[in-house]
Formats: sequence, structure tokens, C-alpha cells
Amino acid sequence: MENEQHVVPHCIRIFPQDNVAVVANEGGLKQGAMVENILLLDDVPQGHKIALCQIAKGEAVIRYGQVIGYALDAIASGRWINEFMLELPEAPELDDWKVKPREQPKMAPLAKEYTFEGYKNPDGSTGIRNILGILPSVQCVAGVLNKAVAHLKKDLLPNYPHVDDIVVLNHSYGCGVAINAKEAKVPIRTLQNLAMHPNLGGELLLVGLGCEKLPPERLVPAGTQPEIIVLQEEHGFGQMMAHIEQAAQRCLERLEKRRRVTCPASKLVIGLQCGGSDAFSGMTANPAIGYAADLLVRAGATVMFSEVTEVRDGIHLLLPRSASMEVEQRLVDEMKWYDQYLTMGGADRSANPAPGNKKGGLANIVEKALGSIAKSGSMPIAGVLSPGERALQKGLLYAATPASDFICGTQQLASGMHLQVFSTGRGTTYGLALAPVIKVSTHDELKNRWEDLIDVNAGRIVSGDASIEDVGQEIFAFILASASDKKETWAEHWQLYNDLCLFNPAPVT
Amino acid sequence: MENEQHVVPHCIRIFPQDNVAVVANEGGLKQGAMVENILLLDDVPQGHKIALCQIAKGEAVIRYGQVIGYALDAIASGRWINEFMLELPEAPELDDWKVKPREQPKMAPLAKEYTFEGYKNPDGSTGIRNILGILPSVQCVAGVLNKAVAHLKKDLLPNYPHVDDIVVLNHSYGCGVAINAKEAKVPIRTLQNLAMHPNLGGELLLVGLGCEKLPPERLVPAGTQPEIIVLQEEHGFGQMMAHIEQAAQRCLERLEKRRRVTCPASKLVIGLQCGGSDAFSGMTANPAIGYAADLLVRAGATVMFSEVTEVRDGIHLLLPRSASMEVEQRLVDEMKWYDQYLTMGGADRSANPAPGNKKGGLANIVEKALGSIAKSGSMPIAGVLSPGERALQKGLLYAATPASDFICGTQQLASGMHLQVFSTGRGTTYGLALAPVIKVSTHDELKNRWEDLIDVNAGRIVSGDASIEDVGQEIFAFILASASDKKETWAEHWQLYNDLCLFNPAPVT
Repeated sequence: MENEQHVVPHCIRIFPQDNVAVVANEGGLKQGAMVENILLLDDVPQGHKIALCQIAKGEAVIRYGQVIGYALDAIASGRWINEFMLELPEAPELDDWKVKPREQPKMAPLAKEYTFEGYKNPDGSTGIRNILGILPSVQCVAGVLNKAVAHLKKDLLPNYPHVDDIVVLNHSYGCGVAINAKEAKVPIRTLQNLAMHPNLGGELLLVGLGCEKLPPERLVPAGTQPEIIVLQEEHGFGQMMAHIEQAAQRCLERLEKRRRVTCPASKLVIGLQCGGSDAFSGMTANPAIGYAADLLVRAGATVMFSEVTEVRDGIHLLLPRSASMEVEQRLVDEMKWYDQYLTMGGADRSANPAPGNKKGGLANIVEKALGSIAKSGSMPIAGVLSPGERALQKGLLYAATPASDFICGTQQLASGMHLQVFSTGRGTTYGLALAPVIKVSTHDELKNRWEDLIDVNAGRIVSGDASIEDVGQEIFAFILASASDKKETWAEHWQLYNDLCLFNPAPVT
Repeated sequence: MENEQHVVPHCIRIFPQDNVAVVANEGGLKQGAMVENILLLDDVPQGHKIALCQIAKGEAVIRYGQVIGYALDAIASGRWINEFMLELPEAPELDDWKVKPREQPKMAPLAKEYTFEGYKNPDGSTGIRNILGILPSVQCVAGVLNKAVAHLKKDLLPNYPHVDDIVVLNHSYGCGVAINAKEAKVPIRTLQNLAMHPNLGGELLLVGLGCEKLPPERLVPAGTQPEIIVLQEEHGFGQMMAHIEQAAQRCLERLEKRRRVTCPASKLVIGLQCGGSDAFSGMTANPAIGYAADLLVRAGATVMFSEVTEVRDGIHLLLPRSASMEVEQRLVDEMKWYDQYLTMGGADRSANPAPGNKKGGLANIVEKALGSIAKSGSMPIAGVLSPGERALQKGLLYAATPASDFICGTQQLASGMHLQVFSTGRGTTYGLALAPVIKVSTHDELKNRWEDLIDVNAGRIVSGDASIEDVGQEIFAFILASASDKKETWAEHWQLYNDLCLFNPAPVT
């Protein structure tokens, strides 16, 4: 029967009050097809919306039980509703939002205690990888570090079988920036927190130039003693390379002695993200990730969801989930900060979605956001992090970051993310050197096309081959196995690692 | 006699009206030393300023014949004048600046015709290297490209002895950005012009993801047919790698056929920059670079100087050198744009200099800028480029860019720079993969310490071992030899290449 569904016209309505449904069939549906007792008046691509009834001009178009737009003209039943037929609704109003005390449902801890094999770090955190990190205080030294690390990985790393990798955390900050501007705190704390990343095992090799605005010392907490090399203090290139090698060797000796021990799942810090989303994201991959997020929270772990422009239009659904008035106020504040940041640059939330999102059926940012927030599951929001702040509490956290995949990834790493779960409908080869990225496809076609890049296929939910719970459990199990390094993600397998990209809302000079 | 000068107290006054001079001796001078008939009242580090007479509170401190600050308290003759003793003057006023017609001195062309061995490009430009460029339309694909290029350089490039290198032009733009914001034009035209870089020989392999805001097609002029690969259209990682390799191979076959031919020096586009500057920069390396710039302009070439915050305080000296009222107005406009950009971010020009500049004797941005503009030589300013605009005319151009070394370098590359001349006092390992960077030291100590990184030592000007003209001629000759690939820079020798860093004044989403 499941096989037949690929040929039987099939569309998905999410909420009973929705007046649109999304075409599920690969290759879309043709004009004249009958689906849900409706005659299609247009060819409709997969993932795109069908009007389930006559919609008058100015009337609300409803998906996820929410207004995703207003009809610019009358829309007949059975028509394809594309991005040009909808007027973007106003973003949920925040200026007069009243924060108030709310009763949150008690969450039941999981019956079973879940564990993984991880590393205990000197600062009390836990790591899931044993990586030597080399952090430049300024991009000026990147050329030397790229050269050094190529040599170190080839000639030194093989002697240390218990060390997973050597990673240079190249970035574009450190000099030629307005370091005393108000918002400079964002990139600075991002770098400071990256320096403490739990997968670096408390070791760090800092390399500075010597004349930069952000000297290496400012990147680590007072009292810590990382290895520091300042190129301007070295006698030429030869000595730079020799001293970097010697310092790296000292770190590697210490990292080599570390062994995995059994740790409770509550020690995990998991980041959630989506990229290259489509209309299936909010029906398959994101709800399944949300299910896994609930399991993680109930297991006592820390789970972060992010991407301000992709929650902004669903914020009225998130605010009532705040665990306290303080959390609610911080959520409001982070949204307002970003509204203002965009306005100052002459943009607004409609700068998102991307053309590929639209091709995938997402008409506008409202529809995208309603699908995106499904990743957050159903647990109360226990805390809010400003961009690059470190997660220091358990439960579901909102970590405010841009939606750009590689910026969000970098900022979540700074927040202490061990591992990221990433949903995609269009497909992306994105990966991170500091943390495994589990890639979840939103539909079968992507999994079939990118078999050697997609880790979990949530597309089975469309065909009925699996439930949201099934895929959520699979993701949860994958997270624990990956944390223990017992299961490899495809991004790790091919070593596909994006460059770090800091969020710097302050000017350069 | 020259040897003795290292022990004889020695300080340098540049203009007769200066009331300060800079200590030239390595290791500085001790309290009690006599120099220029003045008794030193403090220990003064090398490169730092001595008061040559009594300076009253509020009186102007003058270097380069210009006010670099006002004494915050009375300063006795023979005292060390450090950054804390000066009040920053107002930046030259521009709101009421009156642009007017000006007579510029006629420049004499060089008696001899200078040439170099370069590549003729299909678009009429000339290249000095024969590089295969791979340009991502979005950072999402960086992981795949890094993997691909490592393989291509190792296994494919050796088969093409006439191709110099394969370079991935990784950048952080393309998606998750406000692509319709007003200032988005800056990063977009930067990428479009990087795609046409003259050292890429008219070949280009563009790699996109498929859902990004800036699709590969937008990066090249209509009608051109670069190789384009879109990862979302590929069947998995294996096919991506195979198709990238095949496309690269087609480009390499074509590049391999190219040969150098004799070209007039007028075809050259040379960028000038300084980084890690000190008090010697404006007395040794920068004036020598200025002398070479004059020679290049007189040979008919294009020469660009840049770095808005490092010319802003000397703009009153540059504006009268404008070749036309239009040029003068554009200079004013670029300065004002940057003033406003910094103000909007809560910063101003005092965000420059860096701590290393200050250690090197530069008290503030005024003193730094007066030294920085010495690079521009003495020719009329023939044109002005906004950040990332391509240079399409001969002569001395002001290419407005941030002063950040790696951002300025990226923007000058976009403007079509073949080769960069870079002065440094503190020392930097900066280099570019697309263009040789000739590193000029401002004093002997740096050359001695970094013998295997500094290409030309302008420090000999301090000791009197060489004149500004001598070093300028040496730089000019080095440029021609490097353009012909007959002389290697140290950055090329060690392959020290910084990552590209675009200037994006618009918000990310």
C-alpha cells in the first residue's frame, strides 16, 4: 500500500483549520488530478500549496493553524498558491507585549537513564571529541596556521591515536574592527567561548600576531594558562613553525592520555538548525527533531534552537512556553534587538527566505518560521542566550543567532554545542570541524539523491513508512551513538567542514 | 660612519616646523642622552617622539608639518611624548568643503619604457599569474571545495606545469544575508569583480549550492560561460567530486596552453597597503613606496592606495591633488560615507590605531594617517573607486576600503590588483593567494628578525645606508620582476595566504 502512495495523488493538511494542503508526490501533481476531493486547476510542484476551498481576496491563507498570508486576489479551490499570491502579514507585535507569570506543564523525566561515552574536562564540562584546537587571535596569522596545521595533521597527529583531530579555528576578527563599539561584545564573547569549547578538552594553542586589538590573553579566562605563541616575537618563519609544532606537541601529549568514560545524557549540549528548508521541513524533519528535543530535555540535557528571523513570525507561539517572566522578557528583547539591527541596515525579516526555500514551496518567512519552530518540540523554554553566550543550564534554550547556516553553527559552537542536528529539504553539504552534524532530510527524493550525505531520512513520514515518533527516536539514538563516536555522520566521513563565521554586528575600521 | 650611527643617539625630524622628532636608535635612548642638542628627560623607546622644545598646555604638537594633537599638559623639552599626552584633533571638516577646479602639475613620463612578461587575457586585461580560480557562490559549499581542491592540487595540478596554482576563493557571503539591503551592492560587486580577476586568465569554475540568494549566474557578466556546478543538482558527494574534477580539468587544459608575452608596465594594476605600522612607516617604507608609485604612474600603470580610516585625517592634503572636481567630490563622499558607517555602529576613526601601532610610536590616528598617505607619492589622484569597484583607468587611484589588512587586500583584489606592496613596522605574515605581496619593513630590526619574511628593507633609510629613492627604485624593480615571475616573494615561497574577507556593510539574516 505504501508504494502505491507515490502514484496516488497525495497532499498533506496539518491542522483541521488549514485552508491549504501541500502536495506530497514526487514530481508534483498535474492539472486535472483529484486530491482530497478537489480538482486541481494548475500543475502543482511537490511541496507547494493547493487551495482546499475558495479563498476570497483579502482572506487569510492558513497553514499550521496560523495565518501565513492574505490572498492578494480571489483564489479558486484547487489552485496552486504561490509566493506571489500572498500578502505578508505583519510580524507579531512586540512593543506592547505583556510579560506575565505562566504555569508550565510538568515534564516527565524519561523512565530509562540514557548515557554516552564521553570525556570529562578539567572545567567540569564533558566532551564528545578529543580535538586539539588552535585559535588565532586575529586573521592575520591564518596563512601561517594553515601551513602549520597541514604539517601537524600529516606528520604529528598519526602518533596520537587517541586524539581525534587538529582544528584551526580561523575567523575574521581580531583587528581592523571597532573593538570598543557597543556590539563588539558579540564577536569577542563568541571567540572567548569558542576557546572553551568542550570538545577541545581544556587544551588550547593560541596564536597571535602581536599588534592586534584583541590579544590572545583576552580570549581566555584570567588564571588559565593556554599555550600562547605570538608571531612578532619569533625569529622568522622557521622559528614560528618550530615553536607552533613544539607547543602543539605538548598539548597532544596531554590530550593523548584522555579516555572516554560513561556519562549521563544530561551532560549533552545539542544544537538544532535547519538550512535549505522546504515545505516538508515543518511536517517531517523539524517535528521529528522536536520529538528528539523533547526526549533530550526529559533526559536532562541542554537543547538549543536558534535563528531569530526564523522564529520571529512564530514568537507568539513560543512566548507562552517561557519558563519564567525573565525568560519571556529576554525572548522579546532578543527579537526586538534583531528587528532594530535589520532596520538600521535597511532590511527586514522578509530578507529571509532564500530562493531555494521558495522553490521548495515556502511562500514567505511566516510559513518558513512556523515550520522552523517545530524543531523546538513541546517543552518549556528554560532560558535564552544572546548570540555567542555559553549555555550554563539544562533544558530547552533559545540561543539567539542569525539564521545563516554557518553563522548559526559558529554561534551555537560558542554556546558549547557538542553536536548539531540539522534538517534540510533542498540539501546542504554543511558541516563543522568541532562538532558532528547529523543531517536529516525532509523528503525521500533528497535522501535518494544524496544517499552519501544524509544521515537520517524524515521523508518516510510523508509516505507513512514511519511516524514522527519513529524518526524522533532514530535521531535521539543517533545523537547518543555519535556522542560516543560509535556512529559516524556523513560530514565526518567525508570531512566536510565549513569555515567558522562570526556574527559581528559592529563596524570594521 | 654608518655603523657608528647605531650607537650615536639619533632622532629624525621630518619637517622643519615639527616640534617633535622620533628616536631612531634600536633599543631606544636612555634618560640623560643628548640628541640634537637636547637632554632627554625620559627613557624613550625606538620610534617614539621627543619634544624638541617646551610645548605649552593646549599647544599643537607637530609632525609631518601637521598638527597631530594638542598637549594635555605642558611638556618640557626632552620629554617622551606618548599617546596619553595628546588630545586628538578634530578630523578635517568635510561638510562645508568646497570642491573647486585645480591645476595639477604635468607628470613627466619615464624616459625608458619598462616591460614585464605577462599573460594576455581574453577580456583585454593582462595577468601576471596563471591561476585556476574556483569561486563558491555561497559559503555552504566550502567544505566540499576545500576537500576537492586538496585533491586537485595534489593529483591534477602537477600535470599542468604552466598553471601556477588552483585557488578556492572561499568567502562568507551568498546566503543568510539581506541581499536587497542598500549596501549589499558592496559584497556583491566585490565577488563579481573577484570572478574577473586578471590573474585567473578568463577561466573560472563557479560552484553553487542551489538554494542560495546569490546564484552563480549573478557572479559573472551576462553572456560569459564559466564552468558552473550546482551541488543540489548532483547525485551525492561522489558525483560532486567527479564533476568538480572534470570541470577543473577542462579549465586546466585551456590555462595550460597560455604563455607569457612581453607587456608594457602600463598594463599593471598595483595595490598599496600598510599593516602593523609604526612611527617609521611614514619616514621610510611608505615614502619609498610612494616613490615607486610615482614611477609606476609615470610608466602609465594603475596604482591604488586605500584604507579610509588611515587617510581620513590627511584628507585635506589629498583633496588638493584631485585631478578633477568629480574626483575631489568622490573623495569627499567616500570619507563621509565611512564617517556615517562608523557613527551608525557607535564608533569613530579613533577605533584605529591598534595597540601595536601605539607601541611602535604612533600616538593616534592622525599621526598614523599622515604616515600612511606617504604611500600615495606625489602624483595627481586620477580617480576614486568605491569598495570593490574595478579599476578601469590608469594613474593613481584612491580605492576606498576598510583598513583591516585582509579586508583591504580582498577589496583591492576585486579592484583588479595584480600585486600588492605592503609596508610593515611591527611585522605581519599576511599574504594573498591571488596576487604576490611584496613586504617592505620600516626599520632594520624587523628585517633582521624576520629575514625569511621581509622582501625589501626600507629601514636602511634610517641609518642613511640608502635613500628613499634607492629603496623606491628597488621596490619598482621588484614589482616588475615579480610580475614576470622572475623573483619570488617570501609569502609565495612559504605559501602564506590569508583567507578572503569581504566588506559587508549590510546586515546578515
